[in-house]
Amino acid sequence: MPAHLRFGGGLGFSNEKMINILIITHEDFGATLLKTARNIIGEQQFSAAVSIKSNEDPKSVEIRLEKIIKAFNIENGLLILLDLVGGTPSVVCTSLLKKFNNKIEILSGVNLYMVMSAFTHRQKLTLLELKEKVLSDAKASIMDLKGNFFRA
Amino acid sequence: MPAHLRFGGGLGFSNEKMINILIITHEDFGATLLKTARNIIGEQQFSAAVSIKSNEDPKSVEIRLEKIIKAFNIENGLLILLDLVGGTPSVVCTSLLKKFNNKIEILSGVNLYMVMSAFTHRQKLTLLELKEKVLSDAKASIMDLKGNFFRA
Repeated sequence: MPAHLRFGGGLGFSNEKMINILIITHEDFGATLLKTARNIIGEQQFSAAVSIKSNEDPKSVEIRLEKIIKAFNIENGLLILLDLVGGTPSVVCTSLLKKFNNKIEILSGVNLYMVMSAFTHRQKLTLLELKEKVLSDAKASIMDLKGNFFRA
Repeated sequence: MPAHLRFGGGLGFSNEKMINILIITHEDFGATLLKTARNIIGEQQFSAAVSIKSNEDPKSVEIRLEKIIKAFNIENGLLILLDLVGGTPSVVCTSLLKKFNNKIEILSGVNLYMVMSAFTHRQKLTLLELKEKVLSDAKASIMDLKGNFFRA
């Protein structure tokens, strides 16, 4: 499997009802982020990380992502965790939103806690509920340690 | 240089007044995060990424981190970007906060936008101002793309 595409425990092809998780980042920190989350909370099927090079053509990225999305059981829904708004990844994501509108949701600002939250809650929630949960957990994960724990 | 410790452009030993940036994560996605941020916004001195294994002894991690912190010019201040609160990294960070109290600030929830924000603003701001700027940029980077750009 090419380095830019690492699946977390395989895409999975059972009929199990589980929201799919796709991490999309500039370059390949998404793959190590996925690996770290799996090492902490356990093996995860129906998940993948895709890295996009800064100079990649948006159209070819889109074709690549569409293939991956179609390999998932998209009927179960897909939560995309994107690194940031700006550059090729988010341009392509806006295009994907139009194509798979009611089957995918996209959150930017991916960090370790968001990936862990998505994995932890995806079996119990609808796609919309999962998006809201991960969004709320994401905001809670951004913390000023001194302000929170060591106020003078 | 060992894989767990990758310096972004070297620690740097000039007297240049620049706040140091240290990324601390479970395992090694911090190193690729740092590399990605540097590839997007350019070479960065006075920055490093440290990975911590889940089963590492907190005391030995603390000794390792103290050595790195002392290799920086700590008088210029140090902003630590931590992956999440929980586990060995944050246990050690709370201990570091006590030791280097007025020279370091720590934010959790590190994502690509936080690293880029820290690099972009660290020459113009005080440590406290930088912490507030990165905190505010971090919260802004967490976005619901459909909600923001595609409201029906």
